[in-house]
Amino acid sequence: MSAIAGKLAIPIAAHYLQARQGGRGTLLEGLPGVPSGVVLILGAGVVGSYAALKAASQGVQVMVLDRDVGRLRRLEERSGGRIVTAIASPYNIGRFVPIADVLIGAVLIQLEATPHLLDEGLIRRMKPRSVFLDISIDQGGCSTTSRPTNIMDPVYVREGVIHFCVPDIPAMVPRTATVALSNILLPYLEELTRSGREEALRANPTLGRGFYTHGGFCLKRKIATSLDLPFKDVESEWPVERPR
Amino acid sequence: MSAIAGKLAIPIAAHYLQARQGGRGTLLEGLPGVPSGVVLILGAGVVGSYAALKAASQGVQVMVLDRDVGRLRRLEERSGGRIVTAIASPYNIGRFVPIADVLIGAVLIQLEATPHLLDEGLIRRMKPRSVFLDISIDQGGCSTTSRPTNIMDPVYVREGVIHFCVPDIPAMVPRTATVALSNILLPYLEELTRSGREEALRANPTLGRGFYTHGGFCLKRKIATSLDLPFKDVESEWPVERPR
Amino acid sequence: MSAIAGKLAIPIAAHYLQARQGGRGTLLEGLPGVPSGVVLILGAGVVGSYAALKAASQGVQVMVLDRDVGRLRRLEERSGGRIVTAIASPYNIGRFVPIADVLIGAVLIQLEATPHLLDEGLIRRMKPRSVFLDISIDQGGCSTTSRPTNIMDPVYVREGVIHFCVPDIPAMVPRTATVALSNILLPYLEELTRSGREEALRANPTLGRGFYTHGGFCLKRKIATSLDLPFKDVESEWPVERPR
Amino acid sequence: MSAIAGKLAIPIAAHYLQARQGGRGTLLEGLPGVPSGVVLILGAGVVGSYAALKAASQGVQVMVLDRDVGRLRRLEERSGGRIVTAIASPYNIGRFVPIADVLIGAVLIQLEATPHLLDEGLIRRMKPRSVFLDISIDQGGCSTTSRPTNIMDPVYVREGVIHFCVPDIPAMVPRTATVALSNILLPYLEELTRSGREEALRANPTLGRGFYTHGGFCLKRKIATSLDLPFKDVESEWPVERPR
Amino acid sequence: MSAIAGKLAIPIAAHYLQARQGGRGTLLEGLPGVPSGVVLILGAGVVGSYAALKAASQGVQVMVLDRDVGRLRRLEERSGGRIVTAIASPYNIGRFVPIADVLIGAVLIQLEATPHLLDEGLIRRMKPRSVFLDISIDQGGCSTTSRPTNIMDPVYVREGVIHFCVPDIPAMVPRTATVALSNILLPYLEELTRSGREEALRANPTLGRGFYTHGGFCLKRKIATSLDLPFKDVESEWPVERPR
Amino acid sequence: MSAIAGKLAIPIAAHYLQARQGGRGTLLEGLPGVPSGVVLILGAGVVGSYAALKAASQGVQVMVLDRDVGRLRRLEERSGGRIVTAIASPYNIGRFVPIADVLIGAVLIQLEATPHLLDEGLIRRMKPRSVFLDISIDQGGCSTTSRPTNIMDPVYVREGVIHFCVPDIPAMVPRTATVALSNILLPYLEELTRSGREEALRANPTLGRGFYTHGGFCLKRKIATSLDLPFKDVESEWPVERPR
Repeated sequence: MSAIAGKLAIPIAAHYLQARQGGRGTLLEGLPGVPSGVVLILGAGVVGSYAALKAASQGVQVMVLDRDVGRLRRLEERSGGRIVTAIASPYNIGRFVPIADVLIGAVLIQLEATPHLLDEGLIRRMKPRSVFLDISIDQGGCSTTSRPTNIMDPVYVREGVIHFCVPDIPAMVPRTATVALSNILLPYLEELTRSGREEALRANPTLGRGFYTHGGFCLKRKIATSLDLPFKDVESEWPVERPR
Repeated sequence: MSAIAGKLAIPIAAHYLQARQGGRGTLLEGLPGVPSGVVLILGAGVVGSYAALKAASQGVQVMVLDRDVGRLRRLEERSGGRIVTAIASPYNIGRFVPIADVLIGAVLIQLEATPHLLDEGLIRRMKPRSVFLDISIDQGGCSTTSRPTNIMDPVYVREGVIHFCVPDIPAMVPRTATVALSNILLPYLEELTRSGREEALRANPTLGRGFYTHGGFCLKRKIATSLDLPFKDVESEWPVERPR
Repeated sequence: MSAIAGKLAIPIAAHYLQARQGGRGTLLEGLPGVPSGVVLILGAGVVGSYAALKAASQGVQVMVLDRDVGRLRRLEERSGGRIVTAIASPYNIGRFVPIADVLIGAVLIQLEATPHLLDEGLIRRMKPRSVFLDISIDQGGCSTTSRPTNIMDPVYVREGVIHFCVPDIPAMVPRTATVALSNILLPYLEELTRSGREEALRANPTLGRGFYTHGGFCLKRKIATSLDLPFKDVESEWPVERPR
Repeated sequence: MSAIAGKLAIPIAAHYLQARQGGRGTLLEGLPGVPSGVVLILGAGVVGSYAALKAASQGVQVMVLDRDVGRLRRLEERSGGRIVTAIASPYNIGRFVPIADVLIGAVLIQLEATPHLLDEGLIRRMKPRSVFLDISIDQGGCSTTSRPTNIMDPVYVREGVIHFCVPDIPAMVPRTATVALSNILLPYLEELTRSGREEALRANPTLGRGFYTHGGFCLKRKIATSLDLPFKDVESEWPVERPR
Repeated sequence: MSAIAGKLAIPIAAHYLQARQGGRGTLLEGLPGVPSGVVLILGAGVVGSYAALKAASQGVQVMVLDRDVGRLRRLEERSGGRIVTAIASPYNIGRFVPIADVLIGAVLIQLEATPHLLDEGLIRRMKPRSVFLDISIDQGGCSTTSRPTNIMDPVYVREGVIHFCVPDIPAMVPRTATVALSNILLPYLEELTRSGREEALRANPTLGRGFYTHGGFCLKRKIATSLDLPFKDVESEWPVERPR
Repeated sequence: MSAIAGKLAIPIAAHYLQARQGGRGTLLEGLPGVPSGVVLILGAGVVGSYAALKAASQGVQVMVLDRDVGRLRRLEERSGGRIVTAIASPYNIGRFVPIADVLIGAVLIQLEATPHLLDEGLIRRMKPRSVFLDISIDQGGCSTTSRPTNIMDPVYVREGVIHFCVPDIPAMVPRTATVALSNILLPYLEELTRSGREEALRANPTLGRGFYTHGGFCLKRKIATSLDLPFKDVESEWPVERPR
């Protein structure tokens, strides 16, 4: 699903940059003699990487910020050096936000609320009628200006900037999303129906990692802690044999 | 302007493929394990080439049909062989239209009405809720199912296919279009204001090719003939010295 | 060796597509105005990936089917999106086999007989005089129509399709194969001659993974089971210290 | 037709490098740790350029010699600098021939016999069992060791080097060649049948350039001179209006 | 020679950016997490294009300004959209000069003094210890701060910016320059010695375009005018037959 | 730091190839009609890979030797087959050194003195005034002709070959090196100051791997052995929990 969100991010942003949609009225990739726009992406995970590579392949200027140098290195290698990367420090965020035509929040931390890297002050310094996609909205969003929207009414304007904060972007292309999910889930389902639940869980412990609760216990420590539920380590239930 | 239309064609098509816009609900470039969509482009001129190259750079399957092998060869060279090309014969059109998710009419013949390469029967054989962009609509369109629409109300459904027939696509990104036009026109304006009209026309006969009428005569033969106006060859007025 | 087979697969297929070899008489990569052929590859392992990347780099249309989405993703990344991928379901196999000019069976399951993904009915639906390379023939082949051939008499025609089922493709380029094998084996031989067998096996447990039998026991469980031999886990003999 | 010959040259050479065909037994593109082979191409016209680009895209080391720096420059631009180019001086030919695994003669001079750039002495200095394709054989060949062969019996060995001297390479892929020729010829035929011969020749003087004789005269000066026929300049018959 | 200057421009700039050479102490192409530098190039002719493509291939951010949209388009096509282009208006020059780490003046107008696009005020706004290469210095330079230097003493500091203004850059690689010149000149010399001067000039009128004076006349109009010499059109002396 | 050294290696070599610096006076990447130079790199680690990829992207002929086929394979994949690789056997080293214009020693073995792969005899066989960069000089160098130099006096000539043996290449671009180091170190410093030393070491055992001595013990076995210091396994001190 992250791959879909990443691949849709740039076309969605380009759509809202059109004058009729209230945007700046610019063509993101520019033309000979008309400089291309600047896309700033916070987060070099799956969403951010797909969005960055897609933008770069179209000749758009792309900057990606992340705290993890290793992720930035992998992204640079995959793009053949077409993407500018920098550490996601407050200094760099403050320096690059004002020159962006499109800002994409793709900061996703597993099972945790996203930290607020952006606020009103920063958003206000963006160019008028530029576009901000907060894809981390499903875990709270990465800006104090973000609030969830939906596919029927996807955008609002705040501080002069178009905010797109739809949590379920893949629902825009349900046919593709369905096939993609089936591709991943079908092998598990086949295994479950073929061997029965207990046998399948023993044979393939990855299956157990998809459980959130089991036998009255919560199997995810972070969730158990924050909701004060009895916790049990999934490892003690269905241990993974490490490959040798 | 053709470059802008060409660069916008694929994002526009992708937009209308979304389920919420009435389209097939597919992600044009696919995912690992989900085949990408097929884009069929009629015409390998500026519009068709830009659209084809953009689609190919995203991993979409692209086919381009044209009558002119030379144009197809240049396009293949520029794409490094990523684009499938074929002659625009009725046989090939009939073979490829039914497998396209997106069909782009980019057949533009200088100062002439576009021939109708497509009709109801062919369009009906497209996949349900696929998208047809007729960019040649400003010269009559290349399908009998095309009629002009506008930016405020850009699409209609015909034979189960979404038709996008906006003649002035560049108006969707007016800021970029304005800069691009100024880049081209400004040198001429500077020349006109610096030297005066008659001197500028003598010094730079290209300028004269921009005139449609002069001294009571129409300077474009096709227009003169079709509207029955007195005609004068622009060459006799402001002859071009051929470069040596 | 798999890399060699993968790199030779496309040229071998192109060779048998020539009219004089009994093939369709087509140029696999096409020409401007003549669409390129379609190569369908079953299996995204080493053989399938090398073959797919080579075909794609020449502008041939390539489809790769595999059950493992992760492998398809890595292949798409390496090809820059030039390869169409899909899940190796019976539905997809039945859909794509009839449009292929070249079909490559590259389904290799470690130490197991290859499953039969293809049969007479499917092969018959291929285009007449198209080419099928069954590279999985050394483990039984992936089609009921496959039977092993050899370098001196490499092909036969079945259901109108040219079958190439040579199990030892690298033997076609013995000089390259020899250097490649030496590059891999020489370090082990140096270690064995320098330290003696027992010491070398203790110091480098990977060496032990190359043993099929040792001290009267079969060290490969699948082979021991199918042939009913006494089995011993190689891990208990020469344990691998996992890196920390 | 030149494009077909150029695209087939590398696969043909790779085929004859196989041990079973009498060649060196090497994989032209090499493997990690096994250096790729060297292809030397004489002539940077259509045939040489297609062959060079195809080889380079596979990671083969390619050198192209030509007398015309402009052609070498265009080839380097198209290959992104992957091809080594040099002037086709006797010094360079003598320097590079001995290191080539594959030598391709693609020196074609319009309507003239090809000059002999290679002789026994040079060919003898090639590596044993390397491959020489003389594609210029249809105008006499570029080596004193070349003599025409045919598709049924395409090669012979001379000075330890496999010679492939088939003049009509496109006949190996007749289906593709037929479509490609039709794509080019059909528009002319349509014009001829629509307007009649005299009218068509007046309207499209390019057509006249396809005539070798007309009204008792030979229209090609070089042929008329060498065969002592009465000559008439095609220009005087069907003058070309130069575009303005 | 322009190609050599263009290819050396970026390495020369990178050299003077080193701390030991007095430069900013930055690595032009950056690292993962360290943004690459910005190169601004004035002029999209041969020198500017080679420099821009080289910088872009290394992952440096490149902007190229020129007055001619056609040249910018060709450059964008060749770079696959990796280069940002804009019109060389005073507005754009003033906007981009202050963000450049390296500024390259490559404005060359045939046989005319280069216009001054830059002055003290603009140069002063560059980053401290950035690098300015004025390659147009052999026709007067494109900045009021430029004065010719030489290979033995190539740079000086002005307004805090390192100026490199060597007019004969190809002399840094004399071996390459000699071969390149010979490749171009040798065919003309062969023609002259083979046919004699008068015959050679008639047969190959391009040769005559290399003459500055002939028979007491100056053959270059601009030079004749500025030095008040008797002028004769080279066309009247050795007319070029235009190709048909 | 290795990435910086790798990225600077080619420009440094190109600088010393200039005639004024005493080098061969050649342009490493060549020109159309002037073959590019040959770069030979010993070692396919971080330094060697960055240098090889940079050279290849400029159209230079690159050969990389390493003992590890896996590293060579990854390098070939990243370069799209543009780099020739071979096993680092004495045979191959002796074969390729004499044809190199630039030789780069990038053989780095963790915490060990570099083996001498090159000696006077081999270096003498290089082309006169070619360039040798020994980047492994900080661990003793890979040639018997290498001795450390410094940034102020970086090169000397030995056996007719320019030797560049500066151990601290990143110091040439201190600004970039500082940011790169800070990007890596800052997260550790933040952790240390936030949690205190003991807590930080427990929570993030990677931190402990940066210690060379602790509590009177040397934590690196190779150093302890060679200097005869009391040794303690870091693992026993701060054990790494392996991910599951």
